[in-house]
Amino acid sequence: MTQSVFFDNNSTTLLDPVVLQAMLPYMQHQYGNPTSRHCYGRAARQAIDTARQQVAHACGAHPSQVIFTSGGTESNNLALQGMAGEIAEAQQILISAIEHPAVTRPAFAMRRLGHRVGVIACDNQGRLMADSLQANLQRPTALVSMMMVNNETGVIQPIAELSQIAKTHGALVHTDAVQALGKMSVQFDALGVDAMTVSSHKINGPQGAGALILNKRVDIHPLLHGGGQERGLRSGTENVAAIVGFGLACELSMQRWQEKQAHCAKLRERLEQGLRKLGASIFGASAQRVGNTSFFAFSGIEGETMVVALDQAGFAVASGSACSSDSTEPSHVLMAMGVPSDLARGAVRISLGADNSQQQIDDFLTVLGQQVARLKTLTAVSTLSTEVNA
Amino acid sequence: MTQSVFFDNNSTTLLDPVVLQAMLPYMQHQYGNPTSRHCYGRAARQAIDTARQQVAHACGAHPSQVIFTSGGTESNNLALQGMAGEIAEAQQILISAIEHPAVTRPAFAMRRLGHRVGVIACDNQGRLMADSLQANLQRPTALVSMMMVNNETGVIQPIAELSQIAKTHGALVHTDAVQALGKMSVQFDALGVDAMTVSSHKINGPQGAGALILNKRVDIHPLLHGGGQERGLRSGTENVAAIVGFGLACELSMQRWQEKQAHCAKLRERLEQGLRKLGASIFGASAQRVGNTSFFAFSGIEGETMVVALDQAGFAVASGSACSSDSTEPSHVLMAMGVPSDLARGAVRISLGADNSQQQIDDFLTVLGQQVARLKTLTAVSTLSTEVNA
Repeated sequence: MTQSVFFDNNSTTLLDPVVLQAMLPYMQHQYGNPTSRHCYGRAARQAIDTARQQVAHACGAHPSQVIFTSGGTESNNLALQGMAGEIAEAQQILISAIEHPAVTRPAFAMRRLGHRVGVIACDNQGRLMADSLQANLQRPTALVSMMMVNNETGVIQPIAELSQIAKTHGALVHTDAVQALGKMSVQFDALGVDAMTVSSHKINGPQGAGALILNKRVDIHPLLHGGGQERGLRSGTENVAAIVGFGLACELSMQRWQEKQAHCAKLRERLEQGLRKLGASIFGASAQRVGNTSFFAFSGIEGETMVVALDQAGFAVASGSACSSDSTEPSHVLMAMGVPSDLARGAVRISLGADNSQQQIDDFLTVLGQQVARLKTLTAVSTLSTEVNA
Repeated sequence: MTQSVFFDNNSTTLLDPVVLQAMLPYMQHQYGNPTSRHCYGRAARQAIDTARQQVAHACGAHPSQVIFTSGGTESNNLALQGMAGEIAEAQQILISAIEHPAVTRPAFAMRRLGHRVGVIACDNQGRLMADSLQANLQRPTALVSMMMVNNETGVIQPIAELSQIAKTHGALVHTDAVQALGKMSVQFDALGVDAMTVSSHKINGPQGAGALILNKRVDIHPLLHGGGQERGLRSGTENVAAIVGFGLACELSMQRWQEKQAHCAKLRERLEQGLRKLGASIFGASAQRVGNTSFFAFSGIEGETMVVALDQAGFAVASGSACSSDSTEPSHVLMAMGVPSDLARGAVRISLGADNSQQQIDDFLTVLGQQVARLKTLTAVSTLSTEVNA
C-alpha cells in the first residue's frame, strides 16, 4: 500500500468512498447493458439518467446537453475534432498557448483537413490576453478553445469575457473546464460557450468517465460510431458504474467545493510563505488562482530531480504537467509566460486536496528545505567539477 | 435489486467478484495517474503493465501489441478510422454483411474521405462466404473487417482462412473478436490478421475497458490525441481499475472458457430441443456456433412483444442485437441470411453464462410455452378483428 503524502490532486484524486459505495451495486448485481429493454437494462438506463441530471446540475447545464465520454481527453477531442469536422471550408482554429495536450494535439491534427491553428498568448502571470484573442480573430475563425483553469499554474481564465469576444466574431467556443470543476463555480449557461469539457477523476470520482457539455444547436461530428448511444454522438456501451460515480461526485463537489477550496487555500498560503522563505519563484502568484495549486521552482535545481528526491522522502508531487508523456522539455505553459527555460526546468507542482493537513505542509517544508540545501550543494559541486574538467 | 434470470450474456456480463476484488485497491488507496513519476504513479503503471501481459497472453499476442481503449466500440473505430486514415488514396473498405454497428458505421463514415464500402455476403446459416470475399477483392481494397463470432447468432467465422484470402490481395485485415473471446480460442498470432478488437465487459470484466490488438508494422492514425498514452495511439488518463479488471478477466477466461462453454452448450442443447418442440425456427443452427447463443423466432409473434412478456415473467432476454439503438427494423444479420422479414421480426436471443442452470432452462421453456400460446391467440384475435373491421 502506497503511503506517501499525496500532493498531486491535479493529476488524479482519491475516489470518494461514498462514491465508490454508490458504484458498487452496478459492479455487482445491477449489471445491465443500458440499451437492453429488460429489467436489468432499464435499471442501468435509469441510473445513467440520474447521473446525467447530477452532472448537468453541477455544471449549470440541461441534462440533454450532457454527452458522457470516457474522460476529459475524449471530450476535448470530441469538441475539437467534432466541431472542426462539421466545418465545410478550411478555417482557423484558435487555441490558447497554455492548453493541455488533449486540446493542442487534436487542434493540430485538424490541419490535415486544411484548417490553420492560431495561438492566443498569455501574460507573464499566465492570464490569457483579450488583445491577443482580438488580433487572432482578424482571420476567419471557426472555433476557439480556451481552458478555464490551467492545470499547471491553477490560474483562472476570464472565459465569459473572452467567449463574448470570440462570439462577436462568429466563432464557436469550447472550454476545457477539467481543472475548474470542483475548485470554483462552473456554470455552462453563464459562460456563453458552446461546449465545455469536464472529467470525473479530477473531482474524487472514478477514472473512465467524463462529459462534453454541448449547446444542442451546434452540429458536431461523432468520434465513435456504432450503437447510437448518447443521441448518436458517442456510441459504445456506457460504463454504467463510472457514470453513476461521476454523477454523485458532481453532486458532492457542488455541495463542498467552497469549503474544500477554502481549506486548500489556507494550506497553500502557508506553503507559499515557506516556499518564499526558501527562495522559490512562484508562477502565476499575482493572478487569480484556484485555491489548491502552487507551481514553483528553485533556480539551479531540476524539477525532475526534486520530484524524485521528494518521492523518496515520502511526498508525491509533480514536475510540470503529469498528464503528458515523458518529456524533459520545459513546460510549454511557463514558456508562454516568458519564464527563462533554466528556471522553467526547475518547475514543481503541488496540488492539494481536502485530505491534506497543515502538519503535512509543515513536514513538507522541512523536507524541502533539506533537499534544496542538498541539491544546491550537489549542483555547485557538479558545476565546479565541470569547470575543472573544461 | 433485479432478480430476473439473466439470459443476455452477449450484451453484458456479471463482473466476476474475484475481478472486482482485484480492482478495489485501485479505487481506494492505489489511486495514481500512471503518467506520474512518484510512487502512486509507478504503482498504477505497474498494474497496467501486468494487465497488458494478461490480455496479450489470453489473445495470443505480444504485450507491445495491446492498445488499451474504453471498450469494443472504441477499438473498432480505432481500427477502421485509424487504418483508413493512413491510406493516402481513396480505396475500398470491405466489411461483412453481419458486422456490429460499431464496425458498419465507422466504415460508412470513412466514405467522407472518399473511400468506398463493399459488403461480404453470408449464406443462409450466417457464415461468411469466401466466394463473396474473393469477388469483392477484385476492386483495390485497403482494409477488410470481418467479425470472428456474430453477436446475434453466435456463428463462428473462418477468420484465418478468410484473412489469408484478403492478405493475398494486399489488404489489411481487422477482426472484431468481442463475442469470441471467452467462448473459444482466440489467438491473434495464428489468425493472420493485422488488428483485433476485444472487450472486457463481455468476459465478466468491468465495463469501460477494451483493447485493440495491433500488428506493430501497421501504421494507424490515433482517434484521441493528447498526453501520448498507449505509445501515442490512445491518449487519455488510463482507467486503471478497469484495465486491472480486464487483465484478470482475460486470465480467468483463458483458464475457464472450455469448461464454461461446455456447460453453456449442454444447456443450449436442452433449450433448443424445447424450442423445436414449441415450433421455433432456430437461426444458424447448422453452422458452427459458440456454445452459449441461441437465436430463434416463432412465426407470427413479434420479438419485441416476446421480450417484454418474458421480462414480466422474470427472464431477461434480447430481441436481435442489444447493442444497437432502439429500432424496430428486423435484424440486419437475419436479412443478410435471407430470413423473411416477417419471421425475422420475431427474433429472440438467449445468450447463456456460466451461472445459468438446467432448472432455469426448464422453467424458461414452461413460461415460453405459455407465452407462445397466449400471444398466438392474441395475434389470431387481432387478425380476426382486423378482418372483421376491413
